[in-house]
Amino acid sequence: MRKVTYGGAISLDGFLAGPGESIDWLRHSDDTAKIAAESFRGVDSMLMGRKTKEFAQRMGGRPPLKGVTTYVFSRTLESVGEGATLVKEDAAEFVRRMKGEAGGPSSSLATSNILVMGGGEIGSALLEAGLVDEVGFSIHPVLLGGGVPAFQPFTHRVGLELIETRPLANDCVLVRYGVVN
Amino acid sequence: MRKVTYGGAISLDGFLAGPGESIDWLRHSDDTAKIAAESFRGVDSMLMGRKTKEFAQRMGGRPPLKGVTTYVFSRTLESVGEGATLVKEDAAEFVRRMKGEAGGPSSSLATSNILVMGGGEIGSALLEAGLVDEVGFSIHPVLLGGGVPAFQPFTHRVGLELIETRPLANDCVLVRYGVVN
Repeated sequence: MRKVTYGGAISLDGFLAGPGESIDWLRHSDDTAKIAAESFRGVDSMLMGRKTKEFAQRMGGRPPLKGVTTYVFSRTLESVGEGATLVKEDAAEFVRRMKGEAGGPSSSLATSNILVMGGGEIGSALLEAGLVDEVGFSIHPVLLGGGVPAFQPFTHRVGLELIETRPLANDCVLVRYGVVN
Repeated sequence: MRKVTYGGAISLDGFLAGPGESIDWLRHSDDTAKIAAESFRGVDSMLMGRKTKEFAQRMGGRPPLKGVTTYVFSRTLESVGEGATLVKEDAAEFVRRMKGEAGGPSSSLATSNILVMGGGEIGSALLEAGLVDEVGFSIHPVLLGGGVPAFQPFTHRVGLELIETRPLANDCVLVRYGVVN
């Protein structure tokens, strides 16, 4: 079964971006760069919602990662541009099927993992559907007071098991959990 | 100046209590008991809102702590019962004045600190007003999906400096920050 991981950088009050989509509070460091790189290890598929895709584009985009397919979930878009695959299907149904399948052409079981980018909406929907295996966040030292929440309301509780926690540079804290599905 | 600390136990998605005020997800341990005891060190005043007071009463209350005055903020209550002091004034105004004053009769500067209990409303109002010096949370390994948020919306960003973080028993994580006011 392919592993699905959801995560990103959040404020202590749980926002992925502040009011007005601000991300100037993010404290980049060698630590966070290393964690970002590690989060892509073994990943062949990256999932995001339309808003995250559009946000990434406004931020200037970034070159596609070699061997990683980007899936963008949207019921309204007609195309998502080069280097990404549009998915109009319900995210949970799509990922449930995807988890049971093998990875891409160059994938082995060890390199077929799925990374869910913030946004919060897709991650939360997949958590609620019991499809996320791991969550990982770097908690940045700020209260933003509002913005894009990493977690949307759920209808039921989701149990976690701590995998790892440690302080990072610049007063950040890493927390990684396995999800008890 | 008396130190004001806000904190408590939260879920990874930032709730002090789950839907229906549930707290059965809290993982008590020697670690969390020790942290709770330490949080009262040097404290002579405990602050809470009406809802937290009523919640504590429904949970069976607890004996008043020796040398600690409990202040309950409410615009609607007429009394808060024995062992507590009702404050009808705006929490920020009250605490701003309180911080500049000496502690209780048996207090020295080292034993006149102020602890803000969850709730979320009083803590957030005081954070927004620049009156909180320290925040500390034990993050419990669960996503509750809803309930009583530890942080209400703010109108401006609040900077933090990490004081301490460490794993606790039962997959909990301690985070303590100084507030940059």
